Amino acid sequence: MKMSFKNFPMVTRVVYGHGSSNQMDEIVKSVRKNGHPIIYFMDHYFKEKPIVQHIPVKKNDQIIFIDTTSEPTTAGVDQLRDRLKEEFGKVSGIIGFGGGSVLDTTKAVALMMNNKGSSADYQGWDLVKNPGVYHAGVPTLSGTGAEVSRTCVLTGPDKKLGMNSDFTPFNQVILDPNLTKDAPEDQVFYTGMDCYIHCIESLNGTYLNAFSRSYGEKALELCKKIYLEKDVWDDESREDLMMASWHGGMSIAYSQVGIAHALSYGLSYILGIRHGIGNCIAFNQIEEYYPEGVKDFKKIIEKFQIEIPNNVCSNLSDEEMKEMTKVALGLEPLWENALGKNWKKKINEKTVRALYERM
Amino acid sequence: MKMSFKNFPMVTRVVYGHGSSNQMDEIVKSVRKNGHPIIYFMDHYFKEKPIVQHIPVKKNDQIIFIDTTSEPTTAGVDQLRDRLKEEFGKVSGIIGFGGGSVLDTTKAVALMMNNKGSSADYQGWDLVKNPGVYHAGVPTLSGTGAEVSRTCVLTGPDKKLGMNSDFTPFNQVILDPNLTKDAPEDQVFYTGMDCYIHCIESLNGTYLNAFSRSYGEKALELCKKIYLEKDVWDDESREDLMMASWHGGMSIAYSQVGIAHALSYGLSYILGIRHGIGNCIAFNQIEEYYPEGVKDFKKIIEKFQIEIPNNVCSNLSDEEMKEMTKVALGLEPLWENALGKNWKKKINEKTVRALYERM
Repeated sequence: MKMSFKNFPMVTRVVYGHGSSNQMDEIVKSVRKNGHPIIYFMDHYFKEKPIVQHIPVKKNDQIIFIDTTSEPTTAGVDQLRDRLKEEFGKVSGIIGFGGGSVLDTTKAVALMMNNKGSSADYQGWDLVKNPGVYHAGVPTLSGTGAEVSRTCVLTGPDKKLGMNSDFTPFNQVILDPNLTKDAPEDQVFYTGMDCYIHCIESLNGTYLNAFSRSYGEKALELCKKIYLEKDVWDDESREDLMMASWHGGMSIAYSQVGIAHALSYGLSYILGIRHGIGNCIAFNQIEEYYPEGVKDFKKIIEKFQIEIPNNVCSNLSDEEMKEMTKVALGLEPLWENALGKNWKKKINEKTVRALYERM
Repeated sequence: MKMSFKNFPMVTRVVYGHGSSNQMDEIVKSVRKNGHPIIYFMDHYFKEKPIVQHIPVKKNDQIIFIDTTSEPTTAGVDQLRDRLKEEFGKVSGIIGFGGGSVLDTTKAVALMMNNKGSSADYQGWDLVKNPGVYHAGVPTLSGTGAEVSRTCVLTGPDKKLGMNSDFTPFNQVILDPNLTKDAPEDQVFYTGMDCYIHCIESLNGTYLNAFSRSYGEKALELCKKIYLEKDVWDDESREDLMMASWHGGMSIAYSQVGIAHALSYGLSYILGIRHGIGNCIAFNQIEEYYPEGVKDFKKIIEKFQIEIPNNVCSNLSDEEMKEMTKVALGLEPLWENALGKNWKKKINEKTVRALYERM
């Protein structure tokens, strides 16, 4: 039975603090069940990094490095699930260290440990039938809001769409700003812009209510502070961006992202362009839809001396352009949030294609 | 084993929206267990009000009106628990409609259904042994943050202190701004000021970190908007105050309240002065500790033409004054948060008593 107001499931527990990830061992202690292992998913970026030594691997626990060169796919999630089932039968829990890709993979595999078939069967809203195994998220990049959202975005055989469900949010999140110190600078920037852009989209959307507005406003205020007002990137910036990501993710509870995200999903689906940079490529070209937000965005990229790629669609065939446009327009809630109930009168294949041609 | 960073338990689910409390029936459906009833605790203020007709009472469900003339006591909580045990044996859940008193009573009785002895045995930090029965909170007054906190404040035989535990937060919160329309004006004001005051105390405290700061700043910004910037009290004000209360409560996760709350607990313990008004009486006299916050507070009470009671301690005996001072000074974390690790060098019985004498 559908409720008219979403009954939003929250993350079960959250720890915040510099060095709080050192409490991992204590946190997972109560999670272990019947000797089943704890599995750590880590961004492959950490393979040779000191952080790996701090993971409290016991007995049959295992660290699995996740290749994040491409964004998570339903096939990749299914493979990881099959591998864990084959090797261990059951696991006590999965803990993800990384950015949005690893966090979303963690959520998806945890769900698929207790749900039959392929993760592609569950791309959509409220299709997941059973709770997953225990899953915890430890963000090492800030901005996606994946640590707090009720989705995990996957590229599947015919769409890029999340497994949105009440079982998706993490049982535990560890917010340790120390862990966001060492990521590559450009990735830190693009992921931070993901937060900035989804705040602009949420706050300018038609779905917004006072709950989501209050979170979105705080997240945007923090983004403006660190990207426009401050002149250094320091511990405080990392703390503020970590909280901006958290509040930005919460803001989506009763709102939606908008046009940049819809277009970025198309860029990702056809060109394999990663989410953060795809958002920037798209947002940079849609000043008519988000005038103030894009104006400030241009100030930010100038200040941080970021070159946003251009002409990314120039080598695409007519068929690919059509497919990309179809993927973007398929994300109906995003367009409805951005343009209202009559969005189909305001945007169509031709206008979307024209936007892509500018990029 | 103690962790150095608190692993904060969140409310399990939250619904926000005008009219969202009409979804109650659907929400409790999945909560019913083996025919055990759902118990509704309602502020006695609602006894003759239309809201009662909207409560989805089924079969053996029961509405119990809670007398909130005085704040909740451990004896009152124990009595309610005994009554429910005697009449029903077990209950499926308890749902509280009201302000802080009813919400705290709901949390406390839910815990005591599954914990032996008296609630007075559990006043303190992490003393509760077992999870309570399902409990949901539906605030009809905004400001206390009780809807989101991990405590429920009770006056016991020898102290006023909450049952702070990981099992305390609600399984479900319904934030319906419509429900905050009909409360008596002065109660709306004093409860709103509870939020304003605890934001000032949290943001000026030594315990603060970036997590709590971001929530506290948003809550304070919303309070300033509705109490200082706006000239009408409308739907938007009620929405904003509801969110300010929520964020203000979250802000306490990694911080604490401060001097006004400590003094207010004493006023409540000895004089039975309710929390909201007690905070105002105390805060009005401590400009040396919170200069900016108290300055703005004085502007607010002038603007809203509120007469804060004075000379409230003038008829107290020396012994009562001593007892009140002892109660206030017993709240060590509040003083430490306000004044730092060396707080005992900065405040003592004499100074606290002098503050009370001003009130």
